[in-house]
Amino acid sequence: MTLPQPLRGKSVLLATLIFTLAATAWTADFAFAQEEAEAASEAVAATAEQDISYTINSLVMFFCAVLVISMQAGFAMVEVGLNAAKNTVNILFKNIMDLSVGVLLFFFLGFGLMYPGADAAGKWFGFGGSGIMGWGDAALTEVDATAPYSPSADFIFQVAFAATAATIVSGAVAGRMKFSAYLAYSAVLTGLVYPISGMWKWGGGALAEWGFADFAGSVVVHAVGGFAGLAGAIVLGPRMGRFVNGRSIPSPGHNIAFAALGVFILWVGWYGFNPGSQLAYSDSVNANITCFIAVTTTLSAAAGSVAAMAFAWFLFRKPDVTMALNGALAGLVGITANCDQVTFLSAILIGAISGLLVVMGILLLDKLKIDDPVGAWPVHGLCGVWGGIATGIFGTAIPEGMTRAGYITVQVQATAVICVWAFVTMFILFSILKAAGCLRVSVADEQQGLDISEHGMRAYGSTPMMP
Amino acid sequence: MTLPQPLRGKSVLLATLIFTLAATAWTADFAFAQEEAEAASEAVAATAEQDISYTINSLVMFFCAVLVISMQAGFAMVEVGLNAAKNTVNILFKNIMDLSVGVLLFFFLGFGLMYPGADAAGKWFGFGGSGIMGWGDAALTEVDATAPYSPSADFIFQVAFAATAATIVSGAVAGRMKFSAYLAYSAVLTGLVYPISGMWKWGGGALAEWGFADFAGSVVVHAVGGFAGLAGAIVLGPRMGRFVNGRSIPSPGHNIAFAALGVFILWVGWYGFNPGSQLAYSDSVNANITCFIAVTTTLSAAAGSVAAMAFAWFLFRKPDVTMALNGALAGLVGITANCDQVTFLSAILIGAISGLLVVMGILLLDKLKIDDPVGAWPVHGLCGVWGGIATGIFGTAIPEGMTRAGYITVQVQATAVICVWAFVTMFILFSILKAAGCLRVSVADEQQGLDISEHGMRAYGSTPMMP
Amino acid sequence: MTLPQPLRGKSVLLATLIFTLAATAWTADFAFAQEEAEAASEAVAATAEQDISYTINSLVMFFCAVLVISMQAGFAMVEVGLNAAKNTVNILFKNIMDLSVGVLLFFFLGFGLMYPGADAAGKWFGFGGSGIMGWGDAALTEVDATAPYSPSADFIFQVAFAATAATIVSGAVAGRMKFSAYLAYSAVLTGLVYPISGMWKWGGGALAEWGFADFAGSVVVHAVGGFAGLAGAIVLGPRMGRFVNGRSIPSPGHNIAFAALGVFILWVGWYGFNPGSQLAYSDSVNANITCFIAVTTTLSAAAGSVAAMAFAWFLFRKPDVTMALNGALAGLVGITANCDQVTFLSAILIGAISGLLVVMGILLLDKLKIDDPVGAWPVHGLCGVWGGIATGIFGTAIPEGMTRAGYITVQVQATAVICVWAFVTMFILFSILKAAGCLRVSVADEQQGLDISEHGMRAYGSTPMMP
Repeated sequence: MTLPQPLRGKSVLLATLIFTLAATAWTADFAFAQEEAEAASEAVAATAEQDISYTINSLVMFFCAVLVISMQAGFAMVEVGLNAAKNTVNILFKNIMDLSVGVLLFFFLGFGLMYPGADAAGKWFGFGGSGIMGWGDAALTEVDATAPYSPSADFIFQVAFAATAATIVSGAVAGRMKFSAYLAYSAVLTGLVYPISGMWKWGGGALAEWGFADFAGSVVVHAVGGFAGLAGAIVLGPRMGRFVNGRSIPSPGHNIAFAALGVFILWVGWYGFNPGSQLAYSDSVNANITCFIAVTTTLSAAAGSVAAMAFAWFLFRKPDVTMALNGALAGLVGITANCDQVTFLSAILIGAISGLLVVMGILLLDKLKIDDPVGAWPVHGLCGVWGGIATGIFGTAIPEGMTRAGYITVQVQATAVICVWAFVTMFILFSILKAAGCLRVSVADEQQGLDISEHGMRAYGSTPMMP
Repeated sequence: MTLPQPLRGKSVLLATLIFTLAATAWTADFAFAQEEAEAASEAVAATAEQDISYTINSLVMFFCAVLVISMQAGFAMVEVGLNAAKNTVNILFKNIMDLSVGVLLFFFLGFGLMYPGADAAGKWFGFGGSGIMGWGDAALTEVDATAPYSPSADFIFQVAFAATAATIVSGAVAGRMKFSAYLAYSAVLTGLVYPISGMWKWGGGALAEWGFADFAGSVVVHAVGGFAGLAGAIVLGPRMGRFVNGRSIPSPGHNIAFAALGVFILWVGWYGFNPGSQLAYSDSVNANITCFIAVTTTLSAAAGSVAAMAFAWFLFRKPDVTMALNGALAGLVGITANCDQVTFLSAILIGAISGLLVVMGILLLDKLKIDDPVGAWPVHGLCGVWGGIATGIFGTAIPEGMTRAGYITVQVQATAVICVWAFVTMFILFSILKAAGCLRVSVADEQQGLDISEHGMRAYGSTPMMP
Repeated sequence: MTLPQPLRGKSVLLATLIFTLAATAWTADFAFAQEEAEAASEAVAATAEQDISYTINSLVMFFCAVLVISMQAGFAMVEVGLNAAKNTVNILFKNIMDLSVGVLLFFFLGFGLMYPGADAAGKWFGFGGSGIMGWGDAALTEVDATAPYSPSADFIFQVAFAATAATIVSGAVAGRMKFSAYLAYSAVLTGLVYPISGMWKWGGGALAEWGFADFAGSVVVHAVGGFAGLAGAIVLGPRMGRFVNGRSIPSPGHNIAFAALGVFILWVGWYGFNPGSQLAYSDSVNANITCFIAVTTTLSAAAGSVAAMAFAWFLFRKPDVTMALNGALAGLVGITANCDQVTFLSAILIGAISGLLVVMGILLLDKLKIDDPVGAWPVHGLCGVWGGIATGIFGTAIPEGMTRAGYITVQVQATAVICVWAFVTMFILFSILKAAGCLRVSVADEQQGLDISEHGMRAYGSTPMMP
C-alpha cells in the first residue's frame, strides 16, 4: 500500500463536510435528546381502530418506500446503458452517492425544510429542525398511535423521493462533470433545493394554498430533477464531438440491455411512487384508490411506450427501442401528478401524449444543441410539466369554487414557479462551480473517459470476454 | 433530422391500430361513462369487518401484482442472455412491448373476455365489456366494500398474468421473426387467445364446471405460452445454421449473467404469481395458505434446480448452469397449478420431476429439429402440462364425488383442451402471417442480426469495453 | 447427444445424496404424516383480534422473506462483477445452488436444528425433527390462529437467512474451488453449521440465556458467513498470480455495473432482512419499530458508503467506487444486530465506522496475503463482529440487572464464540476436502477459468459484442 499523500484539490472536503456535520450534531445534541426521550416515554393511547389504521398505513408506506428506493437501481442502469462504456464507473458512483449523500442531507436538513410543521411553516420557507423526533431517541420509546402513520415510515418514503429527484440530474450531465462537483450538486439538491420547493406543495406552503395539485410529484419531483438537469447540461455544454459543425452526432449507449433492465426496474418501482403517495390505505376507500392509481399508472406507461414507438417509427422508419423505453418512462412521469383523479381513458391519453412529447423533446434538444445524454429533460422535465398541466385538463378533483379554466391556470402557474426555481437555483450553482474551475473535466480526461481520469479504474475487465 | 418518408410495409399499422381503437373508444363512450359514474356515486356501505377484509385483500393483491409485473424483467434478461448479442435490441423491444401492448389489449378486450361476469358468461365464450367499471369513471367515485377486493387490484393482477403468457412465446421465436409480426402475435394472444381459454377455467367456464383445478396457471398461463411458442417455433423453422446436415449445432447464449439474473428475478416474482393467486388473504386461514404456497413453491423450485443439474451432470458429465436455471423455472411452473393442495414432500417430488422433464424436453426438441432458443416449450409447455397432471396425482382437493382416477382424468383432459387451443389458434395465426410473407426476416437480415436489420442499432456500443 | 459414460469422480454423489434423502423421507414418513394430519384436522379457534394479528404478521413476514430471497440475486451480481469473466458461469452456478441446496437442506435438517422447540431444546444442540408440521400435511388442514404467525411464513423467512449465510462464502473462495467441493460446503453450512449456532441465539440456546443481542444477525448470519469464508480463503490459498514475490497484484473485476447493481439489490433486500426480523408487526408499537428499523438501516448504509468513499479517497487519492459499494454493505452489516435499539445518530456512527473498517479490513487481508476476491470477510466478518460489539456500546436495550460494561462483555464473548465456531468447523471441512484432493482445481484449470474447466462453457458468447 502506498502511503497517503497530501490531497490534491478540495474535492474530499465535500465528502468530509457531511461527516463533520453529523459528528457535531451527534455530540452536541445527545444530552438534549436523552432528556427529551425520557420525558416522552409514555405511549399515547389509541383506540383499536386507530391502532390497526396506524399499523396498516405504516407498513404499506414502508413497502412502497422500498419500491421507490429500488428505483435507484433503475436510474443507474438506464444511465449506464445509454452512455459510453468509458464513463460507467463514474455513473455508478454518482448513483450510489445520490442515495447515500441524499439520505444524510435529507435527514439533517431536507426533511425539516420540507415539512416544517404547523409552527414553523411559512408560505415559502420554514425549518422544522434536524432529524426525526429528536435524533431517533424519542422514536425508540414513544409511539403516537393517534398519528396517521409512523414518522419513520414517513421519513423513509420521503427520503426516497428526494433521492429520486437528485438522481434524475445525473443522466443529463453524464460524461463530462467532475465527480466532486457532482457530489456538491447532489448535496445541495437533496438538502436545500428539492425540499424547499417541495414544501410549497407538500409541506403546506404557498402552492398548496393556491389549490395546486401534484399527487405524487410530476412537478415537485420529476420536473425539479428535469429542469435542474437542463441547467447542468446547458452550463456544462455538450460532450466533445456531440455537435460538429452544427451537425448532431449521435452518441449511442454501450449496453441497451442495461438500459431496458433499468426501465423495467423503474416501471416496477413506480408502483411504490404513485400508489404509495396515497399515504393512507387502511380502509376500503383508500385501498381502492391505491389500486386504482396502480391501474392509471400502468395504462399511462403502456400508452407512452406504444405512442413513442409508433411516432418514432413514423419519423425514422425503424422502430427505435430507446424511444419506446423513454416513452414508458414519459408515460409514468406524465401520470404521476394526476393518477388519483383521472379516468382510465384519460390515463391512456395522458400517457400517449407523454410518449409523443418525449420524442419531440429529444429532437428539440438536438436542434438547440443541448446535450442531455439520457434524455432526462424530455422525460422528467417536459413530461413533468405536461403531467402538471394534464392534471388541470383531465383532473376530476377541481377545488371547490374553482372553474376548469381556473384549475388549469393554477396548474400552469404553479408548475412554472417550481420549474423556474429548480432551473435558476441550479443554474447559479453550476455557474459558480464553473467559474471556480471545479465543474468540468479537462479535454484529455473526457476523451480518456471519466472512469480512468476521475477514478483510476475501468468498469470492464481486461480478461477477454469472448474467444 | 431526416424528413419523414412514406412508410415501407404495413408494419406501423399494427401499432397505430391499437391507438385508433383506444381513441375511438374514448370518444364514443365518454358520455356514457360520465352518466354511469353519476348514477353510481354512492358508496355501498359495509361492516367494519368487511372493510378490513376488503382492504387487506386489495393491498396484498396489489403487491403480488407488482411482483408478477417484475417478472417481465426476468423474462427479458433470460431471453437476452440465452441468445446471440446481435438480437439483443430486438428481444428487449419485444419484451417491453409485450407488457405495453398487453396492458392496452387486455384492458380493451381481454379482461372482458376472461371475466364475462354472471350475465355474459357462456361455457366457452362471453364478453363482459371493455375496461373496468365504465372506463374508470365509476371507480373514481364508487367503492363497493362488500366486494372481496378492489376491481382495480383484480385488473392489475390479471393483466400481469396476461403479459406473462405473452412474453413466454418471445423466447421460442427469437432471432428470426419480424418485429411487426411479433406485435401482431402479442396483441392477439393478450387480447383474444389467452383470455378466452382463461375464461374456461378462471372465468367460470366449461373447464371449471368439469372440476378442473389449475391454481395459479401451470396450464392456463404457462402451457398456453409454451404451446403458442411451440407453434411459432415450428411455423418459423429453425434459425440458420441451427441444424446442419441433420446435426444439431448448439447456439450458446451471449451473456449467462443476464440469464441467471433473469432466473433470480423470475423466482422472486413467482412469490406474487403463486401466493397471490389465493386472491383472499385477510384472515388466518387464508394468510396461512398464502404462506404455505410460498413454501411449496420454494421447495419445488429448489428441487427442480437440483434435479436438472444432477440429471444433466449425469448425461453430459459436466454440470451445466443453463440446465440448473431452466430446472428452477421448471420446478416453478410445475408447482403453479397445485401449490395450494400438495404436501411439502409432494412439492419436492413435483419439482424434481419437472427438473428431469425440462432436460428431456430440451433433448426432445433437439431430436425433432425444432429450434426453441430459450427452451420455452420444455419449461412452460411441458412442465405446464406436468403441473396440470401432477395436480391430479398429488392434489388433496379432489372435488366431492370424484375419485382420484376421475380427478386425474379431468386434469389430463382439460390440460389437453387448453394446449390444443393455444397451439392450433397460434399455428393458424403464424401460418397466415407466413403465407402473407410477414413472418420471417430475410436470410441476409437474420445473418446480420435483427438489431441492425429491424431496428438499425446495436445493443452494445462501439466504445471498447476492454483495453 | 453423446451417450452417458461412467462418471468421473464422486462429484455427482453429493447432489444425488440430497435427493435420496428426500425420497427416503417421503416414502417412509408418508403414512405417518397422513395419520397426523387427520388427527389434527380441526382448526384451533381464535378471537377476531388474534386472527387479524396472525394475518398481518404472516403476510408482512412473507413479503419480507421475498425481499431477503431477492438478495440472492444481489450476492450473485456482486460476486460476478468483482471477479474475472472466465469464472462467471461458475459463480452464477454456485449462487443458484446455494439457494436450491440450502432450501432442501434447511427443510430436512436445518430448520429442526435451529428451532428444536421447547421439548428438544438443549443449551447447545437439539433437533426438532425434519420439515415443518409433518411434511406439510398438517399445514394443509390445520391453522393454529393462536400462534403469532403462520409456520410457513416462519420457514420461508428463516430459510432465506440460511441461504444468505451460505452465499457469503462464495465470494471469498471464488476462482479456484472445485464446484463439487462448493456444493458439499454449501450443504454442510445450511444443513448443520449455520442452524446449530443460530439456535444458540435464536432458538433459545445458551447465548440467548447469556443475554446476547443480535437482532437480525450481524453475527448469527453475517459473521458466520464471513468467518466461514475466511477459513475457505485460507485453506484454499490465494488465486494464481494474486501475490507475486510478496507483492499484492490487484485483480480487478470484469463488470462493475453488475457489482453496483448487486449492491443496489442487496440494499433493497435488506429492508426485508432487518425490518422483517421484528417478527411482529400487527399493532402500532410493532409497526412503528419496524419502520424505525428501516430508517436506522438506511442511515447506516448511507454513512458506510460515504465514510468508505472518503477514507479510500484520502488513502488512494482517487474515489474508488468498489470501496463505496463495500462501504454501503458494511454499513448494512454493522447495523443488522442493533437496528432496533440504537438512535438515528448512533446508526450513522455505526455505519460510518463500518465504512472505515471495511477499507481497513481489505488492506489487512492484503498485508496478510489472504485472497478474498470480493471482500467477504471485511464486509460480513469484520463488520459483523463490529455490529455485535456496537450493540453493546450503543444499544439502549441493556438486559435488566446488567451494566453497560457487562452488556458489552456479553456481546464480545458471544460474538467470539460464534465466529470461532464458524471458522473452526469450516476450516476442518475445507481441510478434509483439501486432504482428499477434492478442494482446489488444477493450475491449468484455474488459468483457463472455471467456466471452461468445470462447466465446459463460456459466460459470454462468441458473437462479437461490438463492431
